[in-house]
Amino acid sequence: MALFEYRLAHKDANSRARRGSFETTRGVVELPTFMPVGTRGSVKGVEIGLLEETGSQIVLGNTYHLMLRPGEEVVRELGGLHRFCGWKKPMLTDSGGFQLFSLAKLTKISEEGAVFRSHIDGRKISLTPERAVEIQEALGSDIAMAFDHVIALPNVRRAVQDAMERTVRWALRCKKAHVRDDQAQFAIVQGGLEYDLRAQCAKELADMDFPGYAIGGLSVGETPEEMYDCIEATVEHMPETKPRYLMGVGRPEDLLEGILRGVDMFDCVMPSRNGRNAMAFTSYGPMRLRNARYERDPRPLEEDCPCPACRRSRAYIRHLFIAEEMLGPILLTIHNITYYQRLMAGARRAIEEDRYVDFYRECFAKWAMGTPD
Amino acid sequence: MALFEYRLAHKDANSRARRGSFETTRGVVELPTFMPVGTRGSVKGVEIGLLEETGSQIVLGNTYHLMLRPGEEVVRELGGLHRFCGWKKPMLTDSGGFQLFSLAKLTKISEEGAVFRSHIDGRKISLTPERAVEIQEALGSDIAMAFDHVIALPNVRRAVQDAMERTVRWALRCKKAHVRDDQAQFAIVQGGLEYDLRAQCAKELADMDFPGYAIGGLSVGETPEEMYDCIEATVEHMPETKPRYLMGVGRPEDLLEGILRGVDMFDCVMPSRNGRNAMAFTSYGPMRLRNARYERDPRPLEEDCPCPACRRSRAYIRHLFIAEEMLGPILLTIHNITYYQRLMAGARRAIEEDRYVDFYRECFAKWAMGTPD
Repeated sequence: MALFEYRLAHKDANSRARRGSFETTRGVVELPTFMPVGTRGSVKGVEIGLLEETGSQIVLGNTYHLMLRPGEEVVRELGGLHRFCGWKKPMLTDSGGFQLFSLAKLTKISEEGAVFRSHIDGRKISLTPERAVEIQEALGSDIAMAFDHVIALPNVRRAVQDAMERTVRWALRCKKAHVRDDQAQFAIVQGGLEYDLRAQCAKELADMDFPGYAIGGLSVGETPEEMYDCIEATVEHMPETKPRYLMGVGRPEDLLEGILRGVDMFDCVMPSRNGRNAMAFTSYGPMRLRNARYERDPRPLEEDCPCPACRRSRAYIRHLFIAEEMLGPILLTIHNITYYQRLMAGARRAIEEDRYVDFYRECFAKWAMGTPD
Repeated sequence: MALFEYRLAHKDANSRARRGSFETTRGVVELPTFMPVGTRGSVKGVEIGLLEETGSQIVLGNTYHLMLRPGEEVVRELGGLHRFCGWKKPMLTDSGGFQLFSLAKLTKISEEGAVFRSHIDGRKISLTPERAVEIQEALGSDIAMAFDHVIALPNVRRAVQDAMERTVRWALRCKKAHVRDDQAQFAIVQGGLEYDLRAQCAKELADMDFPGYAIGGLSVGETPEEMYDCIEATVEHMPETKPRYLMGVGRPEDLLEGILRGVDMFDCVMPSRNGRNAMAFTSYGPMRLRNARYERDPRPLEEDCPCPACRRSRAYIRHLFIAEEMLGPILLTIHNITYYQRLMAGARRAIEEDRYVDFYRECFAKWAMGTPD
């Protein structure tokens, strides 16, 4: 009996949106879902009790960051990532592939794996598919990602194809190296914006029968429309009986576009990063809390939001940012994650009732209105 | 009927320590107590729900900071400081006297009041006794402090005496200007390290019948022993029927020394500021969490502490500081305030049972032992 189980509960009557769930040894995750990013064992500035209150069901940790600091052996010795950071519900770890592309210095990729220099202290480190599996098993996440080869877009077809084919070969090596039966391993579909390469990758990985699949290598410079079209072309070839995860995406509208096309899982630093920069996501679009218009505004960010930030006034939150108080970034991070989770909860209900397309249209219409004065 | 009422519940049999309480329209404060400092309407990094969990009963706000940003009229318009920041229990505001001495630029003091330049934007501002009262009434704190003249120590007796006599005249002006009957006004005893001037100041202020009295102008460069001796010499002349507040003090040992000599209230930025700098206060003395000895330490800071930081390991908190995660300062601030409140709760119980001197000795003995390895 598998310790990880995906269940497809309902398909929306008018779109590819789907309502599902998966079960791990640490509990059930209702889909579609958004995963806040806890890069280094902490969603920046958010105490774990407050993170639970946002409605988050699963949190992402970054293998690349944690292997550098504090090191996966320290985390393992302290009982694994959950015990280390105090989050008791499911966690997913990425494989480091994207950070080698975006963050590490002097990365060299060969068939064996990657050699790079740490962005912290410049020390030379190697990461292979086997090592990425080993590190994630030490961290003890509930879902581990296969090690993939991410390249910049746009790029010549030959390079995109090579990286995709290598990603498939590496996925097989990851599968062979994986031993923990309380951890599910997802494979990542690559192939840039070349639909036939995406399709080929999705099919070859599907044949390996992973418990879940991700779409990687998007949101790296292409237009939103290019991304949506590519998601549509890719999802078509991904197994219906497995969860689908769109990595590193995105804005609230990107989440709704992804769900419309059959995606189940998302992660992004945007709610936390933008929150730290005084931007609040709301049902009526983004608010920039440093704006002087909020100086004496007694209203909460959103009337119906239950988060701690919305128990204060916009004026108070503006004051915190103007006075450079840490509590400003903290409160907006909490609000934004709560907003994302409320959006996902709304999407789940809408799919259950076959009205996802209406929900999608209503959300876009409200966002376009802007926050009322 | 007074809206502020002090009650002396019990005097320790073997010291001047006393167990009391006072009642405000926003609830009772058990004495002795420690007030965390929420300078600009926020105890740095601590969400208000987490602040409540530290056991804090009353929080301090700074008039000087709030008058500059966001301005007391903004706070008043938004329903007062409690509503602004979300703290529902009692609050005390200082008068700005100490910040004029420590923070403002080019401060000039005359009999009328002070003229200074804002440390934020250099704009010229005047603060008089009447204005300090007015601002605090706009903020709506439960306890307001009279405006005092703070000077550097050591200083020539003539200057100390002038500042003390001016502080007495200003206290009378504050009393006359004060109108809110839901706000108690405390006067501040000055007089440097000159015991006769302290005694004279205490007596003259006592004759004006304020609902509470503070000892100001200490912890500004004198040795701890000089401070303790001065507290002892001053408390002797302060009314027994009113709460006694030692301003801006201090370390855990300073609090116990103050209580031993009959002090009821304290405030200090030390638990929050030191927490932000990776220092944890514990029953076995301070711990510096950046230290490599904690790299793999699975234990909490303190076994019996109920705070969120103590639901994590020392290793995790060290990791947060090394990785420069905001959560490190947040967790240690919460722990340190919780530690101060647990110390105060221990002192209150000990006084009730006439064993304060034993409690005091036990605390010092444990602090001297250092944290066990």
